[in-house]
Amino acid sequence: MTTSDQQDLHDLRERTRQFARERDWAQYHTPKNLAMAMSVEVAEVAEHFQWLHSGADHELDDATRAAIRHELADVLLYLVQLADKMNVDLHAAAVEKMALNAIKYPARTR
Amino acid sequence: MTTSDQQDLHDLRERTRQFARERDWAQYHTPKNLAMAMSVEVAEVAEHFQWLHSGADHELDDATRAAIRHELADVLLYLVQLADKMNVDLHAAAVEKMALNAIKYPARTR
Amino acid sequence: MTTSDQQDLHDLRERTRQFARERDWAQYHTPKNLAMAMSVEVAEVAEHFQWLHSGADHELDDATRAAIRHELADVLLYLVQLADKMNVDLHAAAVEKMALNAIKYPARTR
Amino acid sequence: MTTSDQQDLHDLRERTRQFARERDWAQYHTPKNLAMAMSVEVAEVAEHFQWLHSGADHELDDATRAAIRHELADVLLYLVQLADKMNVDLHAAAVEKMALNAIKYPARTR
Repeated sequence: MTTSDQQDLHDLRERTRQFARERDWAQYHTPKNLAMAMSVEVAEVAEHFQWLHSGADHELDDATRAAIRHELADVLLYLVQLADKMNVDLHAAAVEKMALNAIKYPARTR
Repeated sequence: MTTSDQQDLHDLRERTRQFARERDWAQYHTPKNLAMAMSVEVAEVAEHFQWLHSGADHELDDATRAAIRHELADVLLYLVQLADKMNVDLHAAAVEKMALNAIKYPARTR
Repeated sequence: MTTSDQQDLHDLRERTRQFARERDWAQYHTPKNLAMAMSVEVAEVAEHFQWLHSGADHELDDATRAAIRHELADVLLYLVQLADKMNVDLHAAAVEKMALNAIKYPARTR
Repeated sequence: MTTSDQQDLHDLRERTRQFARERDWAQYHTPKNLAMAMSVEVAEVAEHFQWLHSGADHELDDATRAAIRHELADVLLYLVQLADKMNVDLHAAAVEKMALNAIKYPARTR
C-alpha cells in the first residue's frame, strides 16, 4: 500500500506546515518571500562550488560535504513550502516536466 | 510496506538518472554545473514574483501559475540530481536540518 | 576637471532616476524588489555559462556575446538603482571593499 | 577634459586587474566562475531583504546598512571583472540597454 502519507515530499510538506504554524511564520511565508529565500539558499550551495573545477568528490573535504548537505536540505524545505502555497504537487509537476523535456531533448539514437 | 522505491524523491532520482543516461549528459552534470543550473531555475521562479506585492493567488493569472509550476519542477529536478551526485538523501537531510532549525528557532511559548 | 557629473556611475544614476520617474516606477522600485530583480538578471548572465567549460571567448558565438553584454548592462542598471535607494556611493564602497579584501587576502610574496 | 581614466568603472577595472594579478587569480577568474561568484554576492544582498516588507530605510539598522553596502560593492567588483573578461564597456552597454528599454516600455503620456 502506497498512500501519499508515505511519500517523502508529502511528509516534508506536513512537517514544514507544522513548523511554521508553531512559530507564527505564515505572515512571512508569502510566495514571494519563499522564492527569495530559496534563491538565497541555492546561492549558499553554489558558493561552495564557485572556484572549484567541477565539484567532484575529491575536490571537497568533509566539512564542505556536510555544509552542502544542509544547504541542499534548506533548498528543499523552501521549495516544499513554496509549492505548498502554490498548491503544486511537486512530484507530479516534475514527472510532467520530464515528459516535456523528453520531447524537447529526444534521447540520442544509437 | 513502504520501501524507498515507493518514495517520491527516490522515484525522481531513478527517473533523472535514466533521462541523463539516455542523453549522454553525465559529462555536463558535474556538481558545479548542476548547482549553477539550479540557481538559474530558481531565478526563473523568482522572476514571476519580483514586482508583485506578495505573490498571493489573486495576484497571479493561470498562465503564470502554470509557468511557476513547471519552474518549481525544474528546481526539484536539478536538486534531486545534485543531491544524487553528492550522495545526499534529501529527505533525511531535510528532517535533520529541521531538527537543527528547531533548536535555533524554538517554537513560541503560549 | 573631474566632477561627479562626469563619472560613469553617477551618470547612470541620473539616467535611471529619470527613466523610472517618467514611468511612475518608484512604487515598484523598493530596495527589496530591486535586489530580487538584480538576482534575476544575474541568473540570466549565468544561464549562458552553465554548461560551458569556462566561458572563454572561443566557447561563445556572437549572439551569445551580445546577449551577455545586455544582461551585464541589466545587472548594472539594477545595481545602480538599488545603491541609489540605499544612498551608497558604489565607487567609494568598492574601493573600500578592495582595501578590506587586501587585508583578508594579502598579495603573494615573491 | 574627461578621459576614460577618470571614469569610475574604468578605474575599478584597473584596480581589479592589478588586485587579481598580484594574487595569481587569473586561473580562477574564468567568465563562468565570475558569473557564479557574482550570483552568490547578489544573494548575499537579497538575504538582508528576504523577510522585510520593502527594505525601506526604517526597516534596517546600521549594521545591516553597512553589510549591504559592502555586498553591493562585491557585486560591482565581480561585474566589472566579468565585463572586463568579456570586453564589455559597461557604461556604453547600459546606455544602449536603456535605449532598448525605452522602446519596450514607452514613457507614460501625460
